[in-house]
Amino acid sequence: MAVRTVGHNQATMNGLREKVLTLDTMNACVKRVEYAVRGPIVLRALELEQELSQGVKKPFTEVIRANIGDAHAMGQKPITFLRQVLALCVHPDLQNSPDFPEDAKRKARSILQACGGHSLGAYSNSSGIQPIREHVAQYIQRRDGGIPADPNNIFLSTGASDAIVTVLKLLVAGEGRCRTGVLIPIPQYPLYSAALAELDAVQVDYYLDEDRAWALDVAELRRALCQARGHCLPRVLCIINPGNPTGQVQTRECIEAVIRFAFEERLFLMADEVYQDNVYAEGSQFHSFKKVLMEMGPPYSTQQELASFHSISKGYMGECGLRGGYMEVVNMDPAVQQQMQKLVSVRLCPPLPGQVALDVVVSPPEPSDPSFAQFQAEKQEVLAQLAAKAKLTEQVFNEAPGIRCNPVQGAMYSFPRIQLPPRAVRRAKELGQAPDMFFCLRLLEETGICVVPGCGFGQREGTYHFRMTILPAAEKLRPLLEKLSQFHAKFTREYS
Amino acid sequence: MAVRTVGHNQATMNGLREKVLTLDTMNACVKRVEYAVRGPIVLRALELEQELSQGVKKPFTEVIRANIGDAHAMGQKPITFLRQVLALCVHPDLQNSPDFPEDAKRKARSILQACGGHSLGAYSNSSGIQPIREHVAQYIQRRDGGIPADPNNIFLSTGASDAIVTVLKLLVAGEGRCRTGVLIPIPQYPLYSAALAELDAVQVDYYLDEDRAWALDVAELRRALCQARGHCLPRVLCIINPGNPTGQVQTRECIEAVIRFAFEERLFLMADEVYQDNVYAEGSQFHSFKKVLMEMGPPYSTQQELASFHSISKGYMGECGLRGGYMEVVNMDPAVQQQMQKLVSVRLCPPLPGQVALDVVVSPPEPSDPSFAQFQAEKQEVLAQLAAKAKLTEQVFNEAPGIRCNPVQGAMYSFPRIQLPPRAVRRAKELGQAPDMFFCLRLLEETGICVVPGCGFGQREGTYHFRMTILPAAEKLRPLLEKLSQFHAKFTREYS
Repeated sequence: MAVRTVGHNQATMNGLREKVLTLDTMNACVKRVEYAVRGPIVLRALELEQELSQGVKKPFTEVIRANIGDAHAMGQKPITFLRQVLALCVHPDLQNSPDFPEDAKRKARSILQACGGHSLGAYSNSSGIQPIREHVAQYIQRRDGGIPADPNNIFLSTGASDAIVTVLKLLVAGEGRCRTGVLIPIPQYPLYSAALAELDAVQVDYYLDEDRAWALDVAELRRALCQARGHCLPRVLCIINPGNPTGQVQTRECIEAVIRFAFEERLFLMADEVYQDNVYAEGSQFHSFKKVLMEMGPPYSTQQELASFHSISKGYMGECGLRGGYMEVVNMDPAVQQQMQKLVSVRLCPPLPGQVALDVVVSPPEPSDPSFAQFQAEKQEVLAQLAAKAKLTEQVFNEAPGIRCNPVQGAMYSFPRIQLPPRAVRRAKELGQAPDMFFCLRLLEETGICVVPGCGFGQREGTYHFRMTILPAAEKLRPLLEKLSQFHAKFTREYS
Repeated sequence: MAVRTVGHNQATMNGLREKVLTLDTMNACVKRVEYAVRGPIVLRALELEQELSQGVKKPFTEVIRANIGDAHAMGQKPITFLRQVLALCVHPDLQNSPDFPEDAKRKARSILQACGGHSLGAYSNSSGIQPIREHVAQYIQRRDGGIPADPNNIFLSTGASDAIVTVLKLLVAGEGRCRTGVLIPIPQYPLYSAALAELDAVQVDYYLDEDRAWALDVAELRRALCQARGHCLPRVLCIINPGNPTGQVQTRECIEAVIRFAFEERLFLMADEVYQDNVYAEGSQFHSFKKVLMEMGPPYSTQQELASFHSISKGYMGECGLRGGYMEVVNMDPAVQQQMQKLVSVRLCPPLPGQVALDVVVSPPEPSDPSFAQFQAEKQEVLAQLAAKAKLTEQVFNEAPGIRCNPVQGAMYSFPRIQLPPRAVRRAKELGQAPDMFFCLRLLEETGICVVPGCGFGQREGTYHFRMTILPAAEKLRPLLEKLSQFHAKFTREYS
């Protein structure tokens, strides 16, 4: 008897029918989607963790997941006040507990007051709980030095990814040479490439300038746009500031130039500003696109279309698992805004616990509140630690030959460039792997350190990088960085 | 000077440019999306609530939102144990509180043990927390009389809607006459029509038989399929059981016949079973498609592809706001399943609070646990109330001339047929409204009762219906049903 193999043709030969849904018959756009942050390297990390837990011997005792901006998973503690408010909302009997401060109780009461049946178990409006939208608007107004924000232009979301995909969905249209083109930075956060593949839009790459600390250059935007105009209709410009994976913080001048460019070229602006609280470098400061746009005055302030995105997953709170965020739209056609309202209503509403957490972030305790001091202390502690780790990362990597790391001005990642010996590059190609994927897989197998290769974010041809979070605990980070640098040296020797 | 008007052409004439994103340039598929459950009638209800709160006089004192299955908003209390576990997960300091039972504490500890950094703030695996997937599999196995379920085939989700759209997304392919056709019941839950419009798939309607209590008839499936084959490639059959909005519970024989049909016609089966705990009528019983499929044996059990969906928003818990659910896939091509895994990873993970709530639903307290008695009492109380309200609804409506209501065997809605006088139909057409939309809007304006017209779900040409939830509190429901019946009588007189 023939040995039984699992396989397409074999199955058919054995008398089983083809399945209705196969790789051949499925949605081809979905097949093209790639998402490196949770890709093959992370699946391998999972397997290694399982092997370790089963007692299999490895050259390391734990897998360090430095692949994803997941602060709590790396040991960061939740902000106490945020969790107190959320617990009070989930289980209102706690209003009688002496262990919760008065301001947390008050906030929970006011949130539940705005919920159907005074319960987090009711659906909210599809754009979010109304008073929370108002708090978001007030937060933006404070952040932007008094420039007003309209609660009707705020849409709460299931993390920023959800809102970004919603806006892209509205913008995607046309066929052939009239398909919507979307300019995205390279390196990029791969949500963008994944969403564009799924929506069958045209990805238009503009390169950030590694030699100038990943600065965005309008001349490069213009090059990318001109080249794209031959084969699609570029209508959208995506910006990530502070940068992911690249960590740069854009100057005010740069933002002005980008807005002017978008206006002249008739591009809808999407500003991914989820790391707005994560700015560490001296001299760097976060400027929101909304603020700069408004300060530039007409015609920019009155006509340039903008959607900007924020999240509770990053910043100092790191509440990834709750899935919360918001977007603000500016100068959007009211009829389109109604269409967006309709579209989000099909998914009913963003999760209420995430909305609650967002409310705490945008309307935290005031100086006169009992929780103010602790809230501020916890927040500053997290941000100070991140700033120190950003600096340490840059420093340790730049001491290593063959690794060059731009300053981590903001966000949560370093994206160092690595030299790989030609023999390693050839070996990778033999294995059908990108050279930095090959490097990262070897790194994982030998050290347990899980980082994402540059090929998952995009990079200039012939350059190699990896993205590593700065989130591991301070006492772990230095040895980790050194171990990684040493592995790179060993890898280089091995393939020289 | 000309009076300033807001308008497209006017704007252009005033020297303002066209926006980049307009109704003309936006995604045409999104424009075609409709979602009646949160449509115009609900927006009007919102306005009326605002007017009431501002002291505007109306013929009613409150708006009754009987448009959506939102149990907590209608006053249903959360299940105590579920909220205790969730509060303990959100705020682990509560482990020291004497106010929480030992089994809730134990469950919370075991959930947090499986979370990154032991925090709900960490991302989970994209398919959900592993032990929760295992509990779901055990739950299915118990529910289905011991037929095994594989945790690797379970994907947790952000409510059922999210999972349904994910599977449809995989299935949609082709162009022109080869576009994927998806058979859906009429009347249907409008998530389906909305998702198909957005994905640009072909909606293929099969009609449920109102005269036989909304039974599903295979001859009608065959008719719909044959007719569709002329202009698309039908590859998917969606079933909603218990029915939404129609409330029927399918017999085992019917399910077998549907499975046989799907197998013969090579259709991927999608079974929306979110109301599986909501079965009220004597003689009615829930049979899962998975169980029937497996009991039918080969080739069905080994080859028929199926995805089935469940949610924490319905049942006895009604935790809509937490956004949780799962799907189980059966006989799916492993390569496609990998593609699905990849696709869901782009959105990172379902919200962790919803995962926690799901865990409580699928692995509730056992008879030996301290919370068992209260959990069961609360659950049975909700279900008994719903059963009584289902019966009451049918009874009151059927006493009214011109209203005919099938038994509400399951789910959470009645979908009565209403006679509308020809003059009302003509008047509606003059206003550009569907006749039952006209009726429902008038009902809302005069009584404050918000229900969804049948046109939002689909119905046979020339018939009119509305969907009303059975969720209002018992003491409110009878007067509400009577008020609605009286309004229908008055409306009929007015237009006769």
